[in-house]
Amino acid sequence: MANLQDIVYSAAVNILSAFAFLLAFAILRLQPINDRVYFPKWYRKGIRASPTHSRGAVTKFVNLDIRTYIRFLNWMPAALRMPELELIEHAGLDSVVYIRIYLLGLKIFVPITILAFAVLVPVNWTGETLEQIKDLTFSDIDKLSISNIPAGSQRFWAHVIMSYVFTFWTFYVIYNEYKKIATMRLQFLASESRRPDHFTVLVRNIPPDPDESVTEHVEHFFCVNHPDHYLTHQIVRNANNLANLVAKKKSLQNWLIYHQNQYERNPSVKPTTKTGFWGLWGDTVDAIDFYIAEIGKLSEEEDREREKVMNDPNAIVPVAFVSFRSRWGAAVCAQTQQTSNPTIWLTERAPEPRDVYWDNLAIPYVELTIRRLLMAVGLFFLIFFFMIPIAFVQSLASIEGIEKVFPFLTPLIETKSVKSLIQGILPGLALKIFLIVLPMILMMMSRIEGFISLSSLDRRSAAKYHLFLLFNVFIGSIVTGTALDQLKTFLNQSATEIPKTIGVSIPLKATFFITYIMVDGWAAVAAEILRLVPLVIFHLKNTFLVKTDQDRDQATDPGCVDFATYEPRIQFYFLLGLVYAAVTPLLLPFIIIFFAFAYVVFRHQIINVYNQKYESGGAFWPDVHRRLMIGLMISQLLLLGLLSTKDAKELTPSLAPLPILTIWFHILCKGRFESAFVKFPLQEAMVRDTLERATDPNLNLKLYLQDAYIHPVFKGGEVETRRIIEEEETNSLVATVRNTQKSSKHNSEANSAVA
Amino acid sequence: MANLQDIVYSAAVNILSAFAFLLAFAILRLQPINDRVYFPKWYRKGIRASPTHSRGAVTKFVNLDIRTYIRFLNWMPAALRMPELELIEHAGLDSVVYIRIYLLGLKIFVPITILAFAVLVPVNWTGETLEQIKDLTFSDIDKLSISNIPAGSQRFWAHVIMSYVFTFWTFYVIYNEYKKIATMRLQFLASESRRPDHFTVLVRNIPPDPDESVTEHVEHFFCVNHPDHYLTHQIVRNANNLANLVAKKKSLQNWLIYHQNQYERNPSVKPTTKTGFWGLWGDTVDAIDFYIAEIGKLSEEEDREREKVMNDPNAIVPVAFVSFRSRWGAAVCAQTQQTSNPTIWLTERAPEPRDVYWDNLAIPYVELTIRRLLMAVGLFFLIFFFMIPIAFVQSLASIEGIEKVFPFLTPLIETKSVKSLIQGILPGLALKIFLIVLPMILMMMSRIEGFISLSSLDRRSAAKYHLFLLFNVFIGSIVTGTALDQLKTFLNQSATEIPKTIGVSIPLKATFFITYIMVDGWAAVAAEILRLVPLVIFHLKNTFLVKTDQDRDQATDPGCVDFATYEPRIQFYFLLGLVYAAVTPLLLPFIIIFFAFAYVVFRHQIINVYNQKYESGGAFWPDVHRRLMIGLMISQLLLLGLLSTKDAKELTPSLAPLPILTIWFHILCKGRFESAFVKFPLQEAMVRDTLERATDPNLNLKLYLQDAYIHPVFKGGEVETRRIIEEEETNSLVATVRNTQKSSKHNSEANSAVA
Repeated sequence: MANLQDIVYSAAVNILSAFAFLLAFAILRLQPINDRVYFPKWYRKGIRASPTHSRGAVTKFVNLDIRTYIRFLNWMPAALRMPELELIEHAGLDSVVYIRIYLLGLKIFVPITILAFAVLVPVNWTGETLEQIKDLTFSDIDKLSISNIPAGSQRFWAHVIMSYVFTFWTFYVIYNEYKKIATMRLQFLASESRRPDHFTVLVRNIPPDPDESVTEHVEHFFCVNHPDHYLTHQIVRNANNLANLVAKKKSLQNWLIYHQNQYERNPSVKPTTKTGFWGLWGDTVDAIDFYIAEIGKLSEEEDREREKVMNDPNAIVPVAFVSFRSRWGAAVCAQTQQTSNPTIWLTERAPEPRDVYWDNLAIPYVELTIRRLLMAVGLFFLIFFFMIPIAFVQSLASIEGIEKVFPFLTPLIETKSVKSLIQGILPGLALKIFLIVLPMILMMMSRIEGFISLSSLDRRSAAKYHLFLLFNVFIGSIVTGTALDQLKTFLNQSATEIPKTIGVSIPLKATFFITYIMVDGWAAVAAEILRLVPLVIFHLKNTFLVKTDQDRDQATDPGCVDFATYEPRIQFYFLLGLVYAAVTPLLLPFIIIFFAFAYVVFRHQIINVYNQKYESGGAFWPDVHRRLMIGLMISQLLLLGLLSTKDAKELTPSLAPLPILTIWFHILCKGRFESAFVKFPLQEAMVRDTLERATDPNLNLKLYLQDAYIHPVFKGGEVETRRIIEEEETNSLVATVRNTQKSSKHNSEANSAVA
Repeated sequence: MANLQDIVYSAAVNILSAFAFLLAFAILRLQPINDRVYFPKWYRKGIRASPTHSRGAVTKFVNLDIRTYIRFLNWMPAALRMPELELIEHAGLDSVVYIRIYLLGLKIFVPITILAFAVLVPVNWTGETLEQIKDLTFSDIDKLSISNIPAGSQRFWAHVIMSYVFTFWTFYVIYNEYKKIATMRLQFLASESRRPDHFTVLVRNIPPDPDESVTEHVEHFFCVNHPDHYLTHQIVRNANNLANLVAKKKSLQNWLIYHQNQYERNPSVKPTTKTGFWGLWGDTVDAIDFYIAEIGKLSEEEDREREKVMNDPNAIVPVAFVSFRSRWGAAVCAQTQQTSNPTIWLTERAPEPRDVYWDNLAIPYVELTIRRLLMAVGLFFLIFFFMIPIAFVQSLASIEGIEKVFPFLTPLIETKSVKSLIQGILPGLALKIFLIVLPMILMMMSRIEGFISLSSLDRRSAAKYHLFLLFNVFIGSIVTGTALDQLKTFLNQSATEIPKTIGVSIPLKATFFITYIMVDGWAAVAAEILRLVPLVIFHLKNTFLVKTDQDRDQATDPGCVDFATYEPRIQFYFLLGLVYAAVTPLLLPFIIIFFAFAYVVFRHQIINVYNQKYESGGAFWPDVHRRLMIGLMISQLLLLGLLSTKDAKELTPSLAPLPILTIWFHILCKGRFESAFVKFPLQEAMVRDTLERATDPNLNLKLYLQDAYIHPVFKGGEVETRRIIEEEETNSLVATVRNTQKSSKHNSEANSAVA
C-alpha cells in the first residue's frame, strides 16, 4: 500500500505532465498554422478567417511574438468569462448543460470535502487502531481513513451522521440542479426561433392499405382524426443504399484530389495506383484516369438508384413526418394515442431535421422488441464475458500466431529483444484496442436497437457504457478479477454479503483510485485540450487534400462533445467521490481538482472547438440524474456493508433508511421534473402559437415546412444541413448585441495573436 | 408424508362437504323467503318481484313442490347457458372479465395436465429411485413426482423440455386472452351509450390564484388552452364531514325504525334504550323519543354543515371535473400535459360518477408521494412483521389476561375443559381475525395512498394482497416459518441459493398444497354460493328493520365481487399449478376442479347475485397479466433451483433462457396491449363524436353534464346513484331483444319455482 509520500510524488509527476500538456497546448494554439484546429468553431461561424496573407511566409505559420507566449494560461479566464446566456446562444443548451455536470461535481464535493476534513479526518486520525497493531504495515493514508477506527467504536456514529449529511446535501444540490436545468430547458425551448420540429410529429408503423398509397393513407387518416390541425406531411423513402453510394463517391473524390495534388506538385511523375482493395494489389494503372472513370461509373449508378428511389413505391417506408397548423396541434398529436391498436400509427415529436437517424426509420414494432431483447442479452455478455474474445485474440496474436501467418517475419521476431517487446506489448494492446473501440461497439448496438434520433442513440450508448464502467472498472478494480469472476462469486453470495465483500475492500483501494483519478482523469482532460489526433489529421488533410478554402473548412470539422463516452466517465468520478466521502476523505481533493480542471477545459472547448451535431435542449439530464442516484445508492450500500463488519450492530439499522430515502427522492424528482424533458406542455404551445399569429400573420407555414424533412442525400448532403445551422446561428447572433460585441472582440484578439 | 390413500380420503371428505353445501344451497334457494338473498340482481333490475301473495301463508315462505327439489343441480347448466354478449349487458364487462380468469385457468391447465400425465408421470413412475432406498418411507405420490428420478439422470431432460412446452403454451394462451380482452374492452367502450365520463377530465392540483376563485381560474385556463373544445366544469367541495353526518343520521334512523317496529308488534311494552355508547350504559330513556330527538339534532347540524360547504370558498378543493364539447377534446386533454410544471393542472380521464372516491380528491402532489412512501414501508412491515402484533395480542388474550380483565370469570375459566378450549382456540382466533380483517387493512392503506376511484383502490389492494399471499402463504408454507424468518434467511443466502432452498422443498409440500386446494379452494367456492352471512343478515334486517318494499330492496343489497380479495387468491392457484406442473403433476387435477367449479359458481353469482359498484371495462387485466407472469417466473426459477441440486449440470443453463424469455414476453404484451387499458385512442373518439353529431344533432350536452359530477350527498345519496345505473341497464335491456326474452323466461322460471 502506498503511503502519503508516494501519493505526493505521483501527484507531482501527474501535475507536471498535465502542465507540460498545457504548455504544449499554449504554444501550439498560438501558431497561426494550427488556428483551425484550436478555434474551428469560430471558423464555422464565419467570424474568424484564415490568417492574413500580407505577412511574411514564416509568420504565416509560426507565431514569433514572444509576448503572447508569456500569457500562456490566459485562455483559462477567457474561457470562464463568457456569461451563461451568451454561451447557450453560442454553443447550444446541450453543451452548456454538459459542462454544468462538472460544475455540479464541484457544488457537491467542495462542501462535502470541507466537512469531511473538518469532522471525519480528526476522528479517523485519532482512532489509533493501526498504531496498536504492531505487525501491520500501514500508511498515513490509512490513518486518515475509516480503517483506523477500532471495531465496535462509538466513533462510527460520526460516519453515520456525516453519511446522512452528505446524502441530504447531495439531494439538495441535485434537486436544485434538476430544477434549474428544467427551467433552462423550458426557457430555451420558449426562446427558440421557429423550427420545423415544433410543428411536426413523426408517425411510425403506418399500416399498409390495399387501396391507398402511403401518402394518401396518411393524408386521409389525419384529415379525419385531426381535422382542424393537420397541415401537410412528408413521406420517407428508403435511401440507405443511395446514401452509401454518395459516401463512396465522396471518398473516391478525395483520392482523386489527393492524386491530382501530387501531380500538380510534381508534374514529372504520373501518379499510379493499383486496382485492387485499398490500392494494395492488382494491376497498376494511372491513378487520375482510374479515379475519374470510377467516379463516372459511380455517378451513373447513383443516378439510377436516385431514379429508382424516387419512383419506386416500394422504396417508401411506412413512416411519415406529419406537420400541423400549430404547435398546439403537434403537441396534442405527439402525446396521444391514435388508434385502438397501440402498435400502429405511433406518434412522437419529430427530432429536429439534423438529429434524425434515417437508417432506423423503417423498423416495425415487433422486430423492435426482438432487437432490444437481443441487444440486452448482448450487453450482458459484453459486460461479463468481454475477456473471452480478447483472450482468444491475445492467443492468436502471440509470437507463434504471427509466425504462422507471416512466416517471412520469423527471423526478425525470433530476435530476443523484439520477441520480448512483442510478448510484452501484444496482450495489453488487444485489450487497449478493445477499450478504444468499445464506445463504437456500444453505439452500434444502440443503432441496432432502432432509435431514430442521434440524441437518443447517444443517450442509450451512454447508459450501456455506464454499466460497463460500473461492473468492469469500479467493481472490477475493487474485487480484483473480471466481471465474470465477480458474477460467479456474487451469484453464490447472499444479498447482504455482496455489499460487505465490496465494502470491506473499499478503504484498501483508496490509493489505487487516487492514482487512477490522476492518470485517467487529469491526464485525459489535459490531452483533451491538446487535441493531438485532430491536429495530426488536420495537417495531413491540409497537406494532401485541401485545395480551396471550402475544402479547408471541411477539413476543420471539429466534431462534437462525445456525450456517450464522456458522461459515463464523469459519473465514475461522482461515484468515487460519493463512495469515498465517508471512508477515505483524502480522495476528495483529487476529485475536486478533476472537476475544476475539466470544467475550465470543456468550457474552453465548447466555446472554441466543438460544433454540435444536434440540439436536444438538455434532454439527457434525466439520465444524468438517474445515474447520480445509482452512484449515491451504491455508496450507501457499500458503507452499510463496510460498517456491518465493524462489530457495530446498532449502526447498520440506522443507515438502512438511506437507500430507501434515495429511491423515494428519485421518484419525487422524476415526478416533479422529468416530464419537462419528455412531454410538451400545451400551455407553452398555445402561448407561442398566439404570439406567432400576432407577429407574423402572413406566414406560409406549408412552404416553410416543405423541404424540412427530406433525406439529406436528396438535398445535396452536408452543405444544406450546415446552411440551416448557420442560418439559425446567424439569427441568434443578430439578436444579441452583446454576443456580436463579444465575438468581434474575440476576433480582434485572434488578430492580435497573429500580429 | 401422506400417501395416495390419505389424499383420496381427504378428497372424498372435501367433495362430500362441498356436496353438502351445494345441497343446502339448492334447498335454501328454492324457498321463496330466501329469494331476495339468492336472486338479488333480478330484484335490483326490477324484473323479479316479491312472491305473490295469493298463495297460502306457508307456501309464501316454504317451497312445498317436491319436483323442484329433484332437479337441485339445475342452476349449473342455467348458469352456463347465458351467452357472453348477453352476460356483458346483464352484469357488465368487469364481471365477465373476472370470470374469464377462471376460464383462463382451465385453458392453461387442462392441456398441461394431459401432457404432464402422458409424459412426466410415466417418466417419474419408472424412475425407481425411491424404491431402491430401503430406509426411506415414501408414498405413491412421491413415486409420481420428480423426487423419484435419480440424481444426474438423463430423464430430467423430459422435465426441461416439458417446462419449455408448458411455458410456450402459457404464453400462447395468455397472449390470446390479453388480445381477446383488449378487443372486448374496446368493443364494450365503443358500444356503450353516452356517459358523462366520456366527455370529462378530472383536473387535480389546480394552483391557487390570488385574484381569481377556483372556478374562474379553471374556466380561464381551459378557455385559453383548449379554446375549441372546452365546454363546462364542475368544482368539487370538501363534503367529507357532511357525508359522515348523513351516514350517522341514516344509522340512527335504522334504530328508530327498529324500535318503532318492536313497538308496533308489541304495543304493551314501550321500547327503551340507554343514552351511552351503543346503548350499553347510561340513563334509560324512551327509545323512540330519544332517537327522534337525536335525529332532529343531527338534521340541524347537517343543514348547518351543508350551508357551510355550499357557501364557504375554503370548502372548495383545488380539483375540478372539466367537460369538453366532444370525446376527442376530452381524450386529448386527458393524455397531454397542460403546463411546464408537471405537478399542477394534472389531467386524467374522469372515472365514471359512481366510481369516484370523493374523500381523496384534494390531496396535493408532494403529500401524495410522501403517503406512498409511508405505505410502501408500511406494507413491507405488514408482510414481514405481521406476526409480532399478533403474538402480542395472543399473549394478552391468554387465560391470565382474561382473568386480569374479567376477574369474575375466573371460576368458569379455571374449569379444566373450558381452560383447554380457550387455550386451544384463542391463539388461532387472533390469527384468524387478523386474516379476515387483512383485506380491510390493505384497502385502508390503498385509501391513504390517495387513489381517486374505487376501481383503482381495488386494484391496488389486490396488488398488496397478492404480495402478502406470495410471501406468507406460498413461501411461508414451503419453507416453514414466518416471512420474517425467511427474510433473515434469504438476506444471508446467495442469489442462486434461494431458489435452491425453496425448490428442493417443493416436491415435499405437494400433499400439503393438495389439501390446501381442497380445504381453502373447493370449500370456499361452495361457501360462496351458499351465502351464509348475507342470508343471516338479510333475515335479521327483514325481521327488524323492513317496513316497506323499498326498505326490503335496500336490505337485499348483494354487494359486488370483491376483486381485491378474490383475484389474488386465484393467482395463488395459478402459481401452484405452474410450479407443480413439472414437479408433481398429480396436483394439477385438483387445480382444474377448482377452476371449473369456481367458474360455474361465479358465473351463477354474477348472473343472479352480485351487483356492480362501478364499471371499469376490465381495466384490471394488465394487473392480472402481470401477476400471471410473476407466477410463471417463480415457477421457472424454482424448477431451476430444484434441478441444480440434482447433479445435472448441463440442465441448468438450458433452463436459464426461460425467465429471460418470460420478461421479454411480458414487455411485448405490455407494449402491444396495455395502452388499450390506460389510453383513449383519438380515432375511436372521433368516430363516436361524428356518429353522435349525425344521430343527435340537437343534444344539449351542457345540460346532460350539469349534475353528473356532484358529490352524492348533494343529490340525495344512494337513491340517485341507483337511478343512473338503472337508467343505463334499462336502456341496454330495451336494446337487445334476446335479453328481454331471456329475462322474462327467467322470470317465469322463478314463478314456476314458487308455484
